[in-house]
Amino acid sequence: MSWAGRHIISIADFSTEDMLHILDLAASLERQPRPDLLAGRLMATLFFESSTRTRLSFEAAMSKLGGQVIGVTDALSSSARKGETIADTIRMVDQYADVIVLRHSHEGSARLASDVSRVPIINGGDGANQHPTQTFLDLYTIAKLFPDRLQGAGAPLRITVAGDLRYGRTVHSLLTALTHFPVCMQMVPVPGLEMPGHCLDEAQMAGCPVQLLPDLETAVAQSDVLYMTRLQRERFPDPLEFEHVKSAYRVDAAMLRSAAPQLRILHPLPRVNEIAVDVDTTPHAAYVPQAGNGVPVRQALLALVLGRAEVAVGSGA
Amino acid sequence: MSWAGRHIISIADFSTEDMLHILDLAASLERQPRPDLLAGRLMATLFFESSTRTRLSFEAAMSKLGGQVIGVTDALSSSARKGETIADTIRMVDQYADVIVLRHSHEGSARLASDVSRVPIINGGDGANQHPTQTFLDLYTIAKLFPDRLQGAGAPLRITVAGDLRYGRTVHSLLTALTHFPVCMQMVPVPGLEMPGHCLDEAQMAGCPVQLLPDLETAVAQSDVLYMTRLQRERFPDPLEFEHVKSAYRVDAAMLRSAAPQLRILHPLPRVNEIAVDVDTTPHAAYVPQAGNGVPVRQALLALVLGRAEVAVGSGA
Amino acid sequence: MSWAGRHIISIADFSTEDMLHILDLAASLERQPRPDLLAGRLMATLFFESSTRTRLSFEAAMSKLGGQVIGVTDALSSSARKGETIADTIRMVDQYADVIVLRHSHEGSARLASDVSRVPIINGGDGANQHPTQTFLDLYTIAKLFPDRLQGAGAPLRITVAGDLRYGRTVHSLLTALTHFPVCMQMVPVPGLEMPGHCLDEAQMAGCPVQLLPDLETAVAQSDVLYMTRLQRERFPDPLEFEHVKSAYRVDAAMLRSAAPQLRILHPLPRVNEIAVDVDTTPHAAYVPQAGNGVPVRQALLALVLGRAEVAVGSGA
Repeated sequence: MSWAGRHIISIADFSTEDMLHILDLAASLERQPRPDLLAGRLMATLFFESSTRTRLSFEAAMSKLGGQVIGVTDALSSSARKGETIADTIRMVDQYADVIVLRHSHEGSARLASDVSRVPIINGGDGANQHPTQTFLDLYTIAKLFPDRLQGAGAPLRITVAGDLRYGRTVHSLLTALTHFPVCMQMVPVPGLEMPGHCLDEAQMAGCPVQLLPDLETAVAQSDVLYMTRLQRERFPDPLEFEHVKSAYRVDAAMLRSAAPQLRILHPLPRVNEIAVDVDTTPHAAYVPQAGNGVPVRQALLALVLGRAEVAVGSGA
Repeated sequence: MSWAGRHIISIADFSTEDMLHILDLAASLERQPRPDLLAGRLMATLFFESSTRTRLSFEAAMSKLGGQVIGVTDALSSSARKGETIADTIRMVDQYADVIVLRHSHEGSARLASDVSRVPIINGGDGANQHPTQTFLDLYTIAKLFPDRLQGAGAPLRITVAGDLRYGRTVHSLLTALTHFPVCMQMVPVPGLEMPGHCLDEAQMAGCPVQLLPDLETAVAQSDVLYMTRLQRERFPDPLEFEHVKSAYRVDAAMLRSAAPQLRILHPLPRVNEIAVDVDTTPHAAYVPQAGNGVPVRQALLALVLGRAEVAVGSGA
Repeated sequence: MSWAGRHIISIADFSTEDMLHILDLAASLERQPRPDLLAGRLMATLFFESSTRTRLSFEAAMSKLGGQVIGVTDALSSSARKGETIADTIRMVDQYADVIVLRHSHEGSARLASDVSRVPIINGGDGANQHPTQTFLDLYTIAKLFPDRLQGAGAPLRITVAGDLRYGRTVHSLLTALTHFPVCMQMVPVPGLEMPGHCLDEAQMAGCPVQLLPDLETAVAQSDVLYMTRLQRERFPDPLEFEHVKSAYRVDAAMLRSAAPQLRILHPLPRVNEIAVDVDTTPHAAYVPQAGNGVPVRQALLALVLGRAEVAVGSGA
């Protein structure tokens, strides 16, 4: 499948080969900066809800490749307020820009946008549904931390997802992505926020069953990667219950004394209470460089959909 | 009159020759991209009210010519809140930028700004008053759709404006612009939202009287261009009246079966209910490329007021 | 002390030599534009409260040196709302950008940011505490208006600060900066808004005592520089008292008939009522070019902390 002009909507649209291609290109662009690769190309960021991390890293990615950026951070307060549909907004912005990064609270909005757009749409998060560029950067982070392991070298990586496994779109998408690779998946859900059955079934059918671990202590001792997620107060009907879970469901430096030495902790950020600040200075903390990996991964995606990936790799060699 | 340093405030400030010059330059820049024409030049967008379309197309125009952009989209929430006058805000921003695009809800604000600014002011809409760059892109769209007709080749174009002709600044300005050309003007006002008498008098005196058509069906059958406008709920004291007009005043694909083959439908966008979605796929729909024409037209205006138009045409030939 | 990588947090961190170096570099960059000096460098503006003037002039400075900008103007409404700490936000943004300009309402936030950041932090104002780049541009303005006088040529400059000397961080920082130079400091406080004792003590100990003048008329007759400040309504518990002071504490053209010919009036802007509009056209008005001086001064600071100052001066000579 050709990459130029392709939309980036859902992690389910990508094959193993696609994923490895993105990771390779990101690594190449991280090794070898290409400050003119996207010169003359214009990216529009169309954010109907604010997202500092996603927007800034896309803008940084575009800028570092020599491209330019136009954007709307308050999309809701402008045309949409006058009653314009997303489809019409996209048909306007695709007249101005060569690629559109869209973030919208409605599930399916990115797919809808891709149906009408003349230029590639990159989904920067559509509600509780998909946030594929987050998943690619998570995958890239794991690949960087454990070279060749995703491709099958050595024992399968033991990857544990923990926390709100019910609503957290990042863990659902990550699980989908990881079924393409020889890994051993584990989980530590917060009671009441267990992984939905269809996610577990999907993983099972893909030959990647998810093992239940009893607690975070076990996860810390028996994982290569521990992927923590943010607990959101609004998921808990009972405030007392939230307070209880919030203090119980927490990794700190003391707990890490029994960690496997190679354990690396990831988090899509922002964290609130899930990872204590005293973890930051341990060798296990990998969530800050994880955020930084958003830049090369988004550079790779922009280069791909704008048809400049061959050029990137060609002279980057 | 020299273009370098000129302010773009009101459509009434421009001669026929000026308008043709803008259209020619826009066409030249659309044919022949000039990615370095405005290198080193800085445009400030100073938006006291939000406007996705106008701002993004100005930013795209500047970026595609190699210029750079700084901007304030929340101008009201910052200096103005501390009590700063528009005049003082302009005297600050003109220290930083080479050209200022201003949008403000007060009529006359752009003229006021031009009185104090050291750099060219481009009016991006001042309340109900003027939005000249919209008019130039409307004119450019008509000239592109019907080559040489504005300059007198063939029969006069039959151009119909329809909808809210009372408050719609875009139709007022478009009428003013079109009196410079040999066209046949027609109108289909919503009852109660008729064209103001002074607009009709002005057109009459300019030798371009506006014919009243009985309904949209007639307009569709007897026009080359049908320019629709957005109905705004707040113009109707009676909500029921608004609902009635909203469903009656609407072009759809069925109605277009009796259209003249060459008919093209324009709309300044965003549309709400005035043009049915099933029109989009007919050959009559021209409102989406119309929005796209904002980029070359605004490129032309930026090049002109920044004194780079001769360079643009010189090496673009 | 090396400049590359240095944080710009408080005016108290800079020696006389530092200040002169900044002023020299700003003058050099104003004389000799360097459109590629910061090519490939990325500046993030992280504004937790809005500030048109500071943000736009930083963005203009970066753009005019060929650098690129990413930014958050609504920082509070995004990650911070999800409960992210400033420290975590900085650790994210420093993954994307080469320098961060931070504005935050909390005193000490910039120092805190500099403790965790991998890249230079420039304080764009932290509450009532510090706004060092404003002070450098004030100093640069004085140095431009009265060449060589700060370095000791001729009689000491007579510099009067007037208005709200209690809460105005700009006058506190300016006083700290001016103690490095042979000037004669004078003040005209609004009653109840006198300079804090520790500021007066600090100046006294630095050999730069601050003389009290009886009124604005005296200041106008006996100053080279009159630095006015904005009166903020919220500083006055009694609204009537505010109205009284607001009309009394005001420079207008009539008052300036008794001014020393060389008198120049400065103001950090925005002004409200403190300087009448009829002053604008007198030769004494210097507050508008003062705002413009923010660009070369911020260019100098960016070049310094990004390690490009030697290059700037080297080929700018």
